Amino acid sequence: MTDTVVASASREVVIGFERPFVVIGERINPTGRKVLAAEMKVGDYHRVVDDALAQVAAGAHMLDVNAGIPLADEPAILAEAVELVQSVTDVPLSIDSSIVAALEAGLAVYRGKALVNSVTGEEDRLESVLPLVARHGAAVVAISNDETGISEDPDVRFEVARKIVERAQDHGIPASDVVVDPLVMPIGAINSAGRQVMRLVGRLRAELKVNTTCGASNVSFGLPNRNGINSAFLTMAIGAGMTSAITNPMHDGVMQAVLGADVMMGNDPDCVRWIGKYREAGASDGARGNRRDRPRRRRRG
Amino acid sequence: MTDTVVASASREVVIGFERPFVVIGERINPTGRKVLAAEMKVGDYHRVVDDALAQVAAGAHMLDVNAGIPLADEPAILAEAVELVQSVTDVPLSIDSSIVAALEAGLAVYRGKALVNSVTGEEDRLESVLPLVARHGAAVVAISNDETGISEDPDVRFEVARKIVERAQDHGIPASDVVVDPLVMPIGAINSAGRQVMRLVGRLRAELKVNTTCGASNVSFGLPNRNGINSAFLTMAIGAGMTSAITNPMHDGVMQAVLGADVMMGNDPDCVRWIGKYREAGASDGARGNRRDRPRRRRRG
Repeated sequence: MTDTVVASASREVVIGFERPFVVIGERINPTGRKVLAAEMKVGDYHRVVDDALAQVAAGAHMLDVNAGIPLADEPAILAEAVELVQSVTDVPLSIDSSIVAALEAGLAVYRGKALVNSVTGEEDRLESVLPLVARHGAAVVAISNDETGISEDPDVRFEVARKIVERAQDHGIPASDVVVDPLVMPIGAINSAGRQVMRLVGRLRAELKVNTTCGASNVSFGLPNRNGINSAFLTMAIGAGMTSAITNPMHDGVMQAVLGADVMMGNDPDCVRWIGKYREAGASDGARGNRRDRPRRRRRG
Repeated sequence: MTDTVVASASREVVIGFERPFVVIGERINPTGRKVLAAEMKVGDYHRVVDDALAQVAAGAHMLDVNAGIPLADEPAILAEAVELVQSVTDVPLSIDSSIVAALEAGLAVYRGKALVNSVTGEEDRLESVLPLVARHGAAVVAISNDETGISEDPDVRFEVARKIVERAQDHGIPASDVVVDPLVMPIGAINSAGRQVMRLVGRLRAELKVNTTCGASNVSFGLPNRNGINSAFLTMAIGAGMTSAITNPMHDGVMQAVLGADVMMGNDPDCVRWIGKYREAGASDGARGNRRDRPRRRRRG
């Protein structure tokens, strides 16, 4: 049983094996959002604030903050966004950049224990990101690729994850502060991607005993009804042992999948959260299609 | 890899480890449906026909037919319903009764290879149902309870399933014609029911090498938004290895969960079925909430 504790100045969130699944809101990310990118570049953060508040209202337990804008001063923008988001919400943040200076700038202003997103198994990343994580007492997302790229073989990805966990320990970062991203491939292109990642998540939990996360929306790239695929992926991944994901809490189907999976895993005691969310809707909507109101096993003949 | 072949006079359906999940429509069942029960009792089957056609149109691969009506001539009614349903659809049927004479009457008129629903591990059931199944060359649902009732211990339920499979073999019924129902408890009452059944499904597949089914709607008994719970259950159970379920194909969320799980398991090659179903809806509905149209892994800094 492994708990990864992250925190803002006033609130802790625990990613853990016997805990409700942690949803990390993905929306504050200018990749592919031209309007947001243009706004952030000129210091207009109103949409960042709106996205932060809306995702928390929708049930996000943490927020990912990314400021990856071409030809912009990413460290300064990321630090500003982190400060601003922390001023309007109290959920812990995942500070998301592939630029070490930007991670450093974000961590410098962050209040609490952040999740640094991310380090890979590449030598230069290990030696630049891990000392930073250790210095700030943060947790870190470990992405299971290295200099050779992303292996299609889940056993190779497992070994990369093991290497990152070991190197983190060399830097004084406990395995419980490393959250492994097994890398989810687009299933429209690689039909075996689902089975691969489920198996890998199981091994990461049973053998490395680490928490896991992923960019869940990748799995549906190129397919119609992406949220339907994302929901199926999340439910099955939670069943396989995944403990958090960076995803879109604004879609009801995705949040329902996560809450339902928590019920299935026994991580919503007495179904309190499920009942709280759906009790009222249930009468008019949820019950539709189930006319029976008692269990189906039959009388004895 | 185990395939269970069932058939109508003109169509085969295969329940199998590397196959798309088989949805067995649950609607033709008067339990808890007073109007339907009253109609069937007086020989009015128009709703049976409507339910048959609607479920097949919604994507059911098989239909369960049950005629359990108190104080009615269940063998005669079940036989009539089976004949009628076979006259309007070509999907194979699950003939569902706890009365052996009713199973016998249904099998007598059935054209093809039926799924007999069900036998338990109780001695009198084994000795009355299995010879019938053998004589008709049918397949059978094996419910993992016995004289002592339904154990809350999944390992006890596994041993009951093993006993039924062995007894079926004594009667000349191969294990591939036994589809085990691990019994799904209402998760609102037993919070560990989900983990229990997932573990049991995995063992049934890996150790007994049998296909599995269940009355999926039981899991959500007493909870609001039952279809949301049913969807989460089905997705996770398919991930754990379940290969069929008696459920409600009339609910879009349930069918989406099944189709999405087939994609995840690599059992929808090239996602042809998913794309066929959601391509048109995708543009206006499914894509909502995912503004990005490319994978999310970021540029290198």
